[in-house]
Amino acid sequence: MDHQEGSNDIDGMEGAWREIERNGSGLYENEEAGSMREPLLRKRTMNTTSQIAIVGANVCTIESLDYEIVENDLFEQDWRSRKKVQIFQYIVLKWTLALLIGLATGLVGFFNNLAVENIAGFKLLLTSNLMLEHRYFAAFLAYCSTNAILAASAAALCAYVAPAAAGSGIPEVKAYLNGVDAYSILAPSTLFVKIFGSIGGVSAGFVLGKEGPMVHTGACIANLLGQGGSRKYHLTWTWLRYFKNDRDRRDLITCGSAAGVAAAFRAPVGGVLFALEEAASWWRSALLWRTFFTTAVVAVSLRSLIEYCRSGKCGLFGKGGLIMFDVSSSVTTYSTPDLIVIIVLGVIGGVFGALFNYLLDRILRTYSFINEKGAPFKILLTVAISILTSCCSYGLPWLASCTPCPAHLQEQCPTIGRSGNFKNFQCPPGHYNDLASLFLNTNDDAIRNLFSAGTDNEFHMSTLFVFFAAVYCLGLVTYGIAVPSGLFIPVILAGATYGRMVGTLLGPISDLDAGLFALLGAASFLGGTMRMTVSVCVILLELTNDLLLLPLVMLVLLISKTVADSFNKGVYDQIVRMKGLPFMEAHAEPHMRHLVARDVLSGPPVSFSGVEKVGTIVHALRLTGHNGFPVVDEPPFSDAPELVGLVLRSHLLILLKGKRFSKERVKTGVREMLQRFGAFDFAKAGSGKGLKLEDLNILEEEMDMFIDLHPVTNKSPYTVVETMSLAKAAILFRELGLRHLCVVPKTPGTPPIVGILTRHDFMPEHILGLFPHHHSHK
Amino acid sequence: MDHQEGSNDIDGMEGAWREIERNGSGLYENEEAGSMREPLLRKRTMNTTSQIAIVGANVCTIESLDYEIVENDLFEQDWRSRKKVQIFQYIVLKWTLALLIGLATGLVGFFNNLAVENIAGFKLLLTSNLMLEHRYFAAFLAYCSTNAILAASAAALCAYVAPAAAGSGIPEVKAYLNGVDAYSILAPSTLFVKIFGSIGGVSAGFVLGKEGPMVHTGACIANLLGQGGSRKYHLTWTWLRYFKNDRDRRDLITCGSAAGVAAAFRAPVGGVLFALEEAASWWRSALLWRTFFTTAVVAVSLRSLIEYCRSGKCGLFGKGGLIMFDVSSSVTTYSTPDLIVIIVLGVIGGVFGALFNYLLDRILRTYSFINEKGAPFKILLTVAISILTSCCSYGLPWLASCTPCPAHLQEQCPTIGRSGNFKNFQCPPGHYNDLASLFLNTNDDAIRNLFSAGTDNEFHMSTLFVFFAAVYCLGLVTYGIAVPSGLFIPVILAGATYGRMVGTLLGPISDLDAGLFALLGAASFLGGTMRMTVSVCVILLELTNDLLLLPLVMLVLLISKTVADSFNKGVYDQIVRMKGLPFMEAHAEPHMRHLVARDVLSGPPVSFSGVEKVGTIVHALRLTGHNGFPVVDEPPFSDAPELVGLVLRSHLLILLKGKRFSKERVKTGVREMLQRFGAFDFAKAGSGKGLKLEDLNILEEEMDMFIDLHPVTNKSPYTVVETMSLAKAAILFRELGLRHLCVVPKTPGTPPIVGILTRHDFMPEHILGLFPHHHSHK
Repeated sequence: MDHQEGSNDIDGMEGAWREIERNGSGLYENEEAGSMREPLLRKRTMNTTSQIAIVGANVCTIESLDYEIVENDLFEQDWRSRKKVQIFQYIVLKWTLALLIGLATGLVGFFNNLAVENIAGFKLLLTSNLMLEHRYFAAFLAYCSTNAILAASAAALCAYVAPAAAGSGIPEVKAYLNGVDAYSILAPSTLFVKIFGSIGGVSAGFVLGKEGPMVHTGACIANLLGQGGSRKYHLTWTWLRYFKNDRDRRDLITCGSAAGVAAAFRAPVGGVLFALEEAASWWRSALLWRTFFTTAVVAVSLRSLIEYCRSGKCGLFGKGGLIMFDVSSSVTTYSTPDLIVIIVLGVIGGVFGALFNYLLDRILRTYSFINEKGAPFKILLTVAISILTSCCSYGLPWLASCTPCPAHLQEQCPTIGRSGNFKNFQCPPGHYNDLASLFLNTNDDAIRNLFSAGTDNEFHMSTLFVFFAAVYCLGLVTYGIAVPSGLFIPVILAGATYGRMVGTLLGPISDLDAGLFALLGAASFLGGTMRMTVSVCVILLELTNDLLLLPLVMLVLLISKTVADSFNKGVYDQIVRMKGLPFMEAHAEPHMRHLVARDVLSGPPVSFSGVEKVGTIVHALRLTGHNGFPVVDEPPFSDAPELVGLVLRSHLLILLKGKRFSKERVKTGVREMLQRFGAFDFAKAGSGKGLKLEDLNILEEEMDMFIDLHPVTNKSPYTVVETMSLAKAAILFRELGLRHLCVVPKTPGTPPIVGILTRHDFMPEHILGLFPHHHSHK
Repeated sequence: MDHQEGSNDIDGMEGAWREIERNGSGLYENEEAGSMREPLLRKRTMNTTSQIAIVGANVCTIESLDYEIVENDLFEQDWRSRKKVQIFQYIVLKWTLALLIGLATGLVGFFNNLAVENIAGFKLLLTSNLMLEHRYFAAFLAYCSTNAILAASAAALCAYVAPAAAGSGIPEVKAYLNGVDAYSILAPSTLFVKIFGSIGGVSAGFVLGKEGPMVHTGACIANLLGQGGSRKYHLTWTWLRYFKNDRDRRDLITCGSAAGVAAAFRAPVGGVLFALEEAASWWRSALLWRTFFTTAVVAVSLRSLIEYCRSGKCGLFGKGGLIMFDVSSSVTTYSTPDLIVIIVLGVIGGVFGALFNYLLDRILRTYSFINEKGAPFKILLTVAISILTSCCSYGLPWLASCTPCPAHLQEQCPTIGRSGNFKNFQCPPGHYNDLASLFLNTNDDAIRNLFSAGTDNEFHMSTLFVFFAAVYCLGLVTYGIAVPSGLFIPVILAGATYGRMVGTLLGPISDLDAGLFALLGAASFLGGTMRMTVSVCVILLELTNDLLLLPLVMLVLLISKTVADSFNKGVYDQIVRMKGLPFMEAHAEPHMRHLVARDVLSGPPVSFSGVEKVGTIVHALRLTGHNGFPVVDEPPFSDAPELVGLVLRSHLLILLKGKRFSKERVKTGVREMLQRFGAFDFAKAGSGKGLKLEDLNILEEEMDMFIDLHPVTNKSPYTVVETMSLAKAAILFRELGLRHLCVVPKTPGTPPIVGILTRHDFMPEHILGLFPHHHSHK
């Protein structure tokens, strides 16, 4: 395979164009060249299904984002004329936005908490009151129907208003920050559903958490604020024009996702590290600082709100402090035998985590068939899972025997009311049902019970086993349903349960408290599924305030991650891949080292002259889905054909709308251009809101006129020589966060551009489609 | 300025070559082109002075490092033949090395602690015993002379054995990780002096810390282990050949620096974040994980050692836990007025911090004149500062009045023995001297006293004021002397003191404990000097175990950093710049946007043919200091002159040493090459240990023979077109961690390479030297 074959492809390309026209052309961003090959077309079909399956959205437009600074004459001119006051304005706005994101996310996080604790608290109170009167069936009915109604309303919101709000949202945010913008993933409607759907889902007693949705919520808030509000809902703020580019928008969304974690776990430093380790693909020290500021704002605002609630003004909410599961009271001394236990826990966590990821993948693929059938089926599935969950929560505690309350207890036993370690359930006074203490509580309270120290014999082994099995399975079947659902809480729940089991088993030989074992178990399972290290460690530290356990938590995370990594990928990476989002990995794949840049190109690109006929441009825009076009100067504008640079589709559309056409093939220059356009006219619109070709109204006689593309052409595109190793081209593309990478010929005399590499050309599916047998190129 | 001028420079270049020959050619790495211009020559002279001034070393060789994967035929062949078992071996070794770095750094950190606490403890015990006998002058003599002897021995080690070990070491490690390798900065002798010099310096009662030196120590350990031991001392391990490249070595040193922080502060997560935020310039998620593993090992090993010492087997050491300054006992409730105090503290910290950095710069420049004069002067200066410090520590407490011991105290008062809050000094029984409690303690104990809670009225305002002034000034004058000295401890000491002053002043209106104010003060001053955010925050958290104060610490850090940033740069950046290390910033400077790549080039590069005469190569190697040479194929090997790639000086030297010359101008090919060389023959040697031109012995008749450069030429060098904006070229260079960036012509017909950009060409000094008036290029 060499350059020759590439050039023979022109005919094939024409065919592909026609095919795209037939398909309606908008399926995917038809990035340069690569996407027209068979493998990606096949892949595209597969993706579409998965998209429906998980996000629940209809066919998505995926757009690439770009970190590259477009340096064209127009922007240069504007950049030079930018005054000091404007730079100052930019800096002030940047920090104001970070402040606002922090405040808004903190507020939403608090509101979520408040609503859930009140709704779920009321539900549990009702159930337990009915049980106290021995009206067991009525209690079940009340419990089950409340859950089902909450679940159905959350699912209805998801299915009808914003299908993109289903699921965790972390994979989507991760993909966005890698440069993949799926349609409506950060839209205001998604935000709305994410907030209220999450409240509904968590209150409905599902085995799911609010953490993933909070990250997505934070990202949506950041997007909304950064766009200067929503144009659709007439809420715009023109001052924010400086932020209308991919770079600033991605920075804001990084801050937003960090704020989300900070609000969900009340863990400001953990939020920063989560954004750093899991969410973001690029990182700068300036961004670190801004993210840190945002999460500090979240922490301060959350703290003030909690302080306000402490006086009892917030209904059933009001017990929690800034640290959700404080275990710091227990004294931590550990010795060498404990280290062996740590290894055991780490291995268990790794195996269970890898299995969890594997099963989740299977289940999501199965659910896709149901969810595909339409909104009513989504709601039905959700209600079915809700009823299953209710049956487990209410039914399984009957299996547990009643335990007499331990003597010398400071706490009330059995607990009357909502929370607490000792649920009465069906037991006589003075006894408690330990399984009910775990099932008939909110997830947060169940975790608190599991982590609680000095309660070594509170839970029977059988209880813990039943609860673990139930939570593990329910966690798996819950994730794919059409409600916003986080994975952190199910994972922590299951992990804490088997951690406590191990702790109870090893009680005789270990000095550690069973509650601390639960914490280590949670860490091991988190390491096994999420495969994060530093951020999980700090989040757990901030959740439990137990610094002395830190070395053990670190060890257990490392072991479980290592074990699980030998089986499969982390859960978020897996979902990103399953959704078919073209995620660029940080490293080049080994097979890329055998190939050079021109191997994956498919034919010469569609290029324009420096001064081009309007008709040619319109035709090319209509026939291709390409987003970047090389501009080549030919005589008389240069001595030989010469690459001027790259022009973006969006800039072309704005240029065409301006209608500054001329009858002759002449350069108009920047000065004249500036009379018609400001640089901000070319600012990037929100996703899906840019100018479309259909919005243009080009007259027939204008089609034969000319337009000068020089002022809007990016004169300094990054280039590689066609013989550049594909692995090194991939590193260049990834590290600089590019959208288009121009491939130039090695030998002179040929056309000045060989092709354009885009994200899709680096995807393993594409490359292995072209070279199924790992052709080694020499 | 355009391409024309560049071509006229050949004569000037010849002149520069001659000049370099005269100067001995080894002054600096004479990177391509740029370095031959006037401004860099001037700059070089300046650097040399500063280098002596601060590192205390003689004229340094600075080498650049490279993250680029060299893809030449030889390496490719080797890479393909690499078996699975070798990859497995590599992975196992990688983790073993991380483990060993962690263990060794933990051990060294512990040893340092142990030695300091015993030496300083013995000294303080001696002094206080003499004072108890009212032999005040003898006590002073004993104190002062012990200090002076310790200081002189540390300084002698530094001045004669390893001048590079003076100072903090963090700037050097930071520059190394940015790609600048100064000679002997990570040598075994430096490691030795860093360990023992630091013990001497800290024991001598200077106002300095062991934190910076520990980072440097960790980096040295990592370097030593990664090189497979020291070839000079015949301690090599051939298995480690896989790690003989810049990339792996830098990864190891990142781990080492994180381990250093982890060992110094007993803060594993803080160590990771320090490496991430301050030390490293590039970061990958895989590296995050490995660093995390290393610091976890440090934490576990430290903990075991401390546990061992708890039984009293370590002399005077034995009281500390894993948390150095535990303040978690005090209850933290704060309200709105406290937030105002936070702002005040933040502003004070910012102003004091910026002033500290400014003064430090002045003092270091002044010291350079003294240190330049030779080793005896360095020792004299150190002893002088030591005597000054002793006089302050012993003399100033006489100014303080005696305070009666507070009633109802759990602690012993006055403290008999070494540590503790209440030093008796000259006071009658039942009284204590609060200034002596701060001065006549180790720095760690003084910090512990300042942070201690429930002791609101223990220190008088006047005491705190005197101590603050003394510590601030002594910290400034101590840093430049020839002992390993960290800045963290002086900064924390000074910050905690003014924090406590503010706390005492505002005691009536605030609920916060004075100890917590001290913590916030320390945070504010750290933010003002170091300008780190997340890492300082986590380090403080791990030092004090006070999670509830986290939001306040975050706020105070943000404010002080913002205030200080408006005055000058962070202290480490400032020292890097003062030393003249060519540090590449993450962002491009604004003036670069006005220039294009060819503007900063100075003339065509020295290039070789694909098959080149031995004499030409030897001549070029002798006359230039260049480290990379473009290889251009000419007819008959290609149709037109064509850029093959880039060959490195080190590879050329090894090739020449192999003496596989041929009489004819023919390609030898890879196969034949592999018979003579293995890929590991070309592995990078330790810094300063590579083959030199003088080591070669080329016979006169061999000079006319030919050698094929193709197999060792990097066939995929990164390139930019000459019209590429310099700002974008700089981003490419920085993000990919390059050493050489080839500039290719825009129009065909010219020679296939215009020049090579290196690190020096992007330095503001170079660019502003070429374009003093910020010439805007259009």
